[in-house]
Amino acid sequence: MAENIYVRRANYYETDQMGIVHHSNHIRYFEEARLSFMHGIGCDVSEMEKSGIIIPNTDAYAKYHKPIRFYDRVYIEVRLEKFNGAVMRYEYTARLENGDIASTGYTTHCFTDSSFKPMTLKRKFPEYYKKLKDNIWREE
Amino acid sequence: MAENIYVRRANYYETDQMGIVHHSNHIRYFEEARLSFMHGIGCDVSEMEKSGIIIPNTDAYAKYHKPIRFYDRVYIEVRLEKFNGAVMRYEYTARLENGDIASTGYTTHCFTDSSFKPMTLKRKFPEYYKKLKDNIWREE
Amino acid sequence: MAENIYVRRANYYETDQMGIVHHSNHIRYFEEARLSFMHGIGCDVSEMEKSGIIIPNTDAYAKYHKPIRFYDRVYIEVRLEKFNGAVMRYEYTARLENGDIASTGYTTHCFTDSSFKPMTLKRKFPEYYKKLKDNIWREE
Amino acid sequence: MAENIYVRRANYYETDQMGIVHHSNHIRYFEEARLSFMHGIGCDVSEMEKSGIIIPNTDAYAKYHKPIRFYDRVYIEVRLEKFNGAVMRYEYTARLENGDIASTGYTTHCFTDSSFKPMTLKRKFPEYYKKLKDNIWREE
Repeated sequence: MAENIYVRRANYYETDQMGIVHHSNHIRYFEEARLSFMHGIGCDVSEMEKSGIIIPNTDAYAKYHKPIRFYDRVYIEVRLEKFNGAVMRYEYTARLENGDIASTGYTTHCFTDSSFKPMTLKRKFPEYYKKLKDNIWREE
Repeated sequence: MAENIYVRRANYYETDQMGIVHHSNHIRYFEEARLSFMHGIGCDVSEMEKSGIIIPNTDAYAKYHKPIRFYDRVYIEVRLEKFNGAVMRYEYTARLENGDIASTGYTTHCFTDSSFKPMTLKRKFPEYYKKLKDNIWREE
Repeated sequence: MAENIYVRRANYYETDQMGIVHHSNHIRYFEEARLSFMHGIGCDVSEMEKSGIIIPNTDAYAKYHKPIRFYDRVYIEVRLEKFNGAVMRYEYTARLENGDIASTGYTTHCFTDSSFKPMTLKRKFPEYYKKLKDNIWREE
Repeated sequence: MAENIYVRRANYYETDQMGIVHHSNHIRYFEEARLSFMHGIGCDVSEMEKSGIIIPNTDAYAKYHKPIRFYDRVYIEVRLEKFNGAVMRYEYTARLENGDIASTGYTTHCFTDSSFKPMTLKRKFPEYYKKLKDNIWREE
């Protein structure tokens, strides 16, 4: 199973006047973790796009537990929870350095052609299909 | 009941390489609509913060129906669905000019002091309490 | 001469932990003003891109005079200072509601094909050439 | 002299519909590099803010040479070019993995108290003064 912890520091411009990272940026951190995971398993999104596969979000959710502050190191765990060729769903846990959970969440995605018409990967893109299928998260 | 449609155009820097507004920005549009609504009912967030009321998100959700493209005019309807002094919840519908739904979603918020300790508005801030209470959304 | 004042409010997520709009966002406000101006004179950037014209920035500058705060109404004046078919340069003045200058700046742009190879508009896109040429700013 | 190369990957949400990192984000990358450098020399901005030192930008400039694309690894070199206790100026060079320059630029900053009144560090904050003074960039 591919490495599934993504680490980054919180940036100054991501804070807001509450003095904490703006809630929309947790959603962006989730994306960073997901795209790093996908890259790691051979599913680079830019290459997939060049092959004609677009991967829009169909939803996104975040639950906020603790604030993230400027320069905090954040550890985002990402798990591919579901993939059936047409839809995939990821779950995320963002933790602070001390192990406290900052946020949890999920995103769901479909696969489309370049005009946003839904499609499935199984027949047209069997390599990508296999890579994703092989990396669905399983407790070990 | 306060005006609850917020209108704005999609900005270029909000698009991504898919050619559509990045999904995290829908969450930001929801916030714009909410803060405009709150301002309209006399609950300006900067003033509330000066009084010592911080209003962090406790969660955020968006479901994506249709892409928003650069320079699209977006109409975000916001409804205060729940408010009990300790927690409030908003629901959102973002529509394109032709009436199509671009996204729907919700956010939940609590009220805290400046050290992020939860509190309720009822006793300490009866004016804000009343303004929010009076503007809970009701079908008419 | 086309209308050249663009108005918008500062958003919460644009503030940082200093309690003011992050400096990078002034650069974004300048872009909003420029693209609104260009749209107004018949040079919609999405349409230009569909015709094969890409308009990357070659530089950007902002000088910060006064902070912009959440919910401030900001008035961004944009002037097309130079256009010769190959290069264009805009100047910007962002003002607060009381007339104080928040920031001034400029951006320079070239025109390229979709592989970022520079080109000039004059021969291949005479309509766009004329529209821009006609809207170079002149003191009146 | 403190380490002065900051490395990060370009994020998907930082691209725009041209398929490249939006020009405003180079300005954000510069900030990341600067704040990492400052942290490295013992000038953590959050700690400085807690001591009552606010460090707003007074200007920012970027010149764009080559596009940055999604997932590119970007190397941002930062040099403290000038510091006199009242003003500091940084210069930046962002390079792609192959050594090509993506952008160059500079930012200037002053020091203020929490009401944005300018001050100098020398007398009131001699430790921070010394740390910055000692890390002005010199060709070696």
